[in-house]
Amino acid sequence: MALSLTILGSNSALPTSDRYPTAQILNVSERFFLIDCGEGTQMQLRRNKVNFSKINHIFISHLHGDHVFGLIGLISTFGLLGRRKVLTIHAHQDLKVLLKPHLEYFVADLPYRIEFNDLTFDEPRVVYEDKKVMVESIPLSHRVPTCGFIFKEKPLQPNIQKQAIERFKLTVPEIVAIKNGEEFIGVDGLPVKRSELLHEPRKPLSYAFCSDTRYYRRIIPFITNVDLLYHEATFLHELKDLAKRTSHTTAKQAAIIAKDANIGKLILGHFSSRYKDKMPFLSEAKAVFDNVELVSDNQVYHLE
Amino acid sequence: MALSLTILGSNSALPTSDRYPTAQILNVSERFFLIDCGEGTQMQLRRNKVNFSKINHIFISHLHGDHVFGLIGLISTFGLLGRRKVLTIHAHQDLKVLLKPHLEYFVADLPYRIEFNDLTFDEPRVVYEDKKVMVESIPLSHRVPTCGFIFKEKPLQPNIQKQAIERFKLTVPEIVAIKNGEEFIGVDGLPVKRSELLHEPRKPLSYAFCSDTRYYRRIIPFITNVDLLYHEATFLHELKDLAKRTSHTTAKQAAIIAKDANIGKLILGHFSSRYKDKMPFLSEAKAVFDNVELVSDNQVYHLE
Repeated sequence: MALSLTILGSNSALPTSDRYPTAQILNVSERFFLIDCGEGTQMQLRRNKVNFSKINHIFISHLHGDHVFGLIGLISTFGLLGRRKVLTIHAHQDLKVLLKPHLEYFVADLPYRIEFNDLTFDEPRVVYEDKKVMVESIPLSHRVPTCGFIFKEKPLQPNIQKQAIERFKLTVPEIVAIKNGEEFIGVDGLPVKRSELLHEPRKPLSYAFCSDTRYYRRIIPFITNVDLLYHEATFLHELKDLAKRTSHTTAKQAAIIAKDANIGKLILGHFSSRYKDKMPFLSEAKAVFDNVELVSDNQVYHLE
Repeated sequence: MALSLTILGSNSALPTSDRYPTAQILNVSERFFLIDCGEGTQMQLRRNKVNFSKINHIFISHLHGDHVFGLIGLISTFGLLGRRKVLTIHAHQDLKVLLKPHLEYFVADLPYRIEFNDLTFDEPRVVYEDKKVMVESIPLSHRVPTCGFIFKEKPLQPNIQKQAIERFKLTVPEIVAIKNGEEFIGVDGLPVKRSELLHEPRKPLSYAFCSDTRYYRRIIPFITNVDLLYHEATFLHELKDLAKRTSHTTAKQAAIIAKDANIGKLILGHFSSRYKDKMPFLSEAKAVFDNVELVSDNQVYHLE
């Protein structure tokens, strides 16, 4: 699979026994990105059989407890498991100051290094990039500096057609050149059509994580056309004033964002624990944007 | 019930999806004492339907992460629930220094006060007392300063016999005096026997929590005759050298302590996550001390 997202925690600040605070693990082209790290994240990772050694980057949207209190436990566990690889934590610059005394006191003998990448909150910025994947932070609007994150596959290389290799007796350097877009000249001296040589690749996939934030239309140009959008929906629209006051979004507002940004699929989470029944979130959002689901802990979304 | 203990977490440092790090909630005469507070304690409290507002005292045995990483989340949740009552945390003095910046950053607007009671680690000391219950700390021996805790009901008052009230036409002050041990003189001018006036109360109950510690025989006089003993058993006896090196106890050693202290029932926990099958802990301990069980998360022990 190309992109899969596992929900580790889907509640807002007050966790319940079946909804943990925010955390998600995203697999894009076998890069495992942890997004936020509420209390209990490490147990949820175990429950979902995630290989701890594959997590090299943690993205923290903002420094509210329900998004970070699981970090120190996870860092400690990585150490007990004998981790050697660098762990990069992308977060507000205050985090490293806050963690430092705890790292020194509780996990002084950590066998690996932690690097902190300080996020900025004024404009979109590339915070991670390799040959297959790119991660951008985008400013959200909450009570403290907050980022959303967009995870994008880079354009994929086309695959060479097997029969083309035999037909044109292609060498490895020729295959590489063709994949890189160079023209291939046949024995008749004429260029061969790309469609006779290559399978065109699928469209690269993208996922946007937007939590926590007030109803914030400025994100629309940045998330336009993403395949999957997680947006917070702390309240129903009847509490839109409370949502505004606490810098959160209602289910209806999240659906409007999804519609206006022409996204593929919308998933909602970060529900206030005041709601026992979550179904009204679904009907409220569906009235605006049809392809929407409510997330639950341990749910997995695959995009192909 | 007079005393009930709920296991919230039973593993050692590396939690699994079904065994959380150390935490227990003890109800003695409707006082709810939280003992240690590993990551995920608040979710486990929810799972076990514990009323958060009844927890006024938290006892922290030592400052290793698997015994304290759940504290900041629980403190924050208490605040979000609108708590007003003082919360007392009994712990090593370093804890308040470590928590301070996190309290200021993450929960600056806490609507209640936290009091820290600094534990001492050189000799037994009464750390909590009211008219029904007493809690003592006792020194354990681990890699950092560590306390065990003994929770004791105070001697119970006898109940007056209903038929005695009628027979001797007892007034309320007379009943109070009799209960307090004063002699009651009958109409014949002779003292009435206690057995004609009172139901003798049941024996007061006691619970001792001993984790983490190496095999440490000095605790025996302090825990002698307790009704229920939780003792750590991180390893099986075949790893006794590793147990010694890491200041932990084997199942066999814990059973020897229980036997030599003549305790009522022994429960073992804090298992190393290296053991998939925990049954060998039981057979190893049972060979020395018969009344023993292995704890699991969400298990409840009632003493009457």
